[in-house]
Amino acid sequence: MTTVTTRTVRYPADGLTMVGHLALPAGAGRRPAVLIGPEGPGISDFQRGLADALAELGYVALLFDINGGRWFTDPQEMLDRALPLLADPERMREIGRAALDVLRAEPRTDPDRIAAIGYGTGGAIALELGRAGVPLRAIGTLNAVTVGRPGEAANIPCPVWAGVGSEDPIMSVARREEFTAELQAAGVDWRLTVYGGARHAFHHPIGDAVVVPGVGHHPRQADRAWRDMLALLAECLPVTESGDSGS
Amino acid sequence: MTTVTTRTVRYPADGLTMVGHLALPAGAGRRPAVLIGPEGPGISDFQRGLADALAELGYVALLFDINGGRWFTDPQEMLDRALPLLADPERMREIGRAALDVLRAEPRTDPDRIAAIGYGTGGAIALELGRAGVPLRAIGTLNAVTVGRPGEAANIPCPVWAGVGSEDPIMSVARREEFTAELQAAGVDWRLTVYGGARHAFHHPIGDAVVVPGVGHHPRQADRAWRDMLALLAECLPVTESGDSGS
Repeated sequence: MTTVTTRTVRYPADGLTMVGHLALPAGAGRRPAVLIGPEGPGISDFQRGLADALAELGYVALLFDINGGRWFTDPQEMLDRALPLLADPERMREIGRAALDVLRAEPRTDPDRIAAIGYGTGGAIALELGRAGVPLRAIGTLNAVTVGRPGEAANIPCPVWAGVGSEDPIMSVARREEFTAELQAAGVDWRLTVYGGARHAFHHPIGDAVVVPGVGHHPRQADRAWRDMLALLAECLPVTESGDSGS
Repeated sequence: MTTVTTRTVRYPADGLTMVGHLALPAGAGRRPAVLIGPEGPGISDFQRGLADALAELGYVALLFDINGGRWFTDPQEMLDRALPLLADPERMREIGRAALDVLRAEPRTDPDRIAAIGYGTGGAIALELGRAGVPLRAIGTLNAVTVGRPGEAANIPCPVWAGVGSEDPIMSVARREEFTAELQAAGVDWRLTVYGGARHAFHHPIGDAVVVPGVGHHPRQADRAWRDMLALLAECLPVTESGDSGS
């Protein structure tokens, strides 16, 4: 029987007290681990469910926080927080590194086998960890084709998979091309999947509740994007045990 | 123990005698079936291996022929055959329908559960079958983002997945955009995956032997593209039995 254990973790970053959600797989040994970055509004039960699903598959999963425990329902309040953050790679890296420290401090985490995935703003942070040269095994982002500072993509040490909705006005064709050109010029091992008909935040059930142009849920493409994310992890971070003989 | 049975099939199409490769899965009942279209040079042992791999997974698989049994090693000879074909949707459909008739005539084929996949020219034919309204369950193409006649994409009855190499000069960014715009305008359920660093024919081991600019093998991205193709089939054409109680 599989039993996932979850824990709320509080830690300082970016001048705030972040409130993350840690999910541990059954067993006692070290396991590969995944950082999960949430979208601009912050962490939600939907994202907690993703962390728990990864733990069911055998990963240590930390859904990290970007907003000091806040969940923004007001789009303007969210943008006031997210836009300056997205414009500041050092702040994004600080938030990502603080979460990475929490994940590495967990005894169940195999510190040599960590991947970072993320959605929107959280995906941008996952990419910045790569551009900072953090030794990740994979980076997967959805709704985040953010470009970094010149030359830094060459520091990305692992395969990158990115997914975007074709009808996402924020992740436009021009931005996609700029993103993939950056990775290609840097010699990164990358893939991009475009989901037809999907808008921004299409992975998230909240999409239909947020009345913002270009935002909406697309359940079928969301399912596929999750399977594609899991395929990235299966390739780059297979679930094997280390350091124990238990299950 | 799994035993795949293969058979060479000869049938007329486009004024030629086509020489296809049919692979049957173990067991006796009807199974979902897959048409496989080869790239411009024609069918090869590599493609036969794909058909056999699908049969191992439980599909009836027909690698169809486009060149009357010829395998072109001379690029110019290949282009002299492929370019007029690619410019003529009716000829492509005739070649595809002739193969479909062979596949449907096979007693192991469940005629209600057929998908079409293809590479390059063979992928263009798979898409034309969709635009002709053939009741396929899925269309998957690699190195083929070919656009059809105006309005006909609306006849495509199934999900479409297409994969291209980012460095494929034939399947350029402009062509990709034209292709996805056609599908999106027609309301088709589509996805496009771009494989970073991959050139035209990157899926095929022959890539490195063909000294043509923009063509080359990329084993790692080829493996991923095959897994993505299998994921499309797993979603749209799961292997279940019909019409028998055997294995």
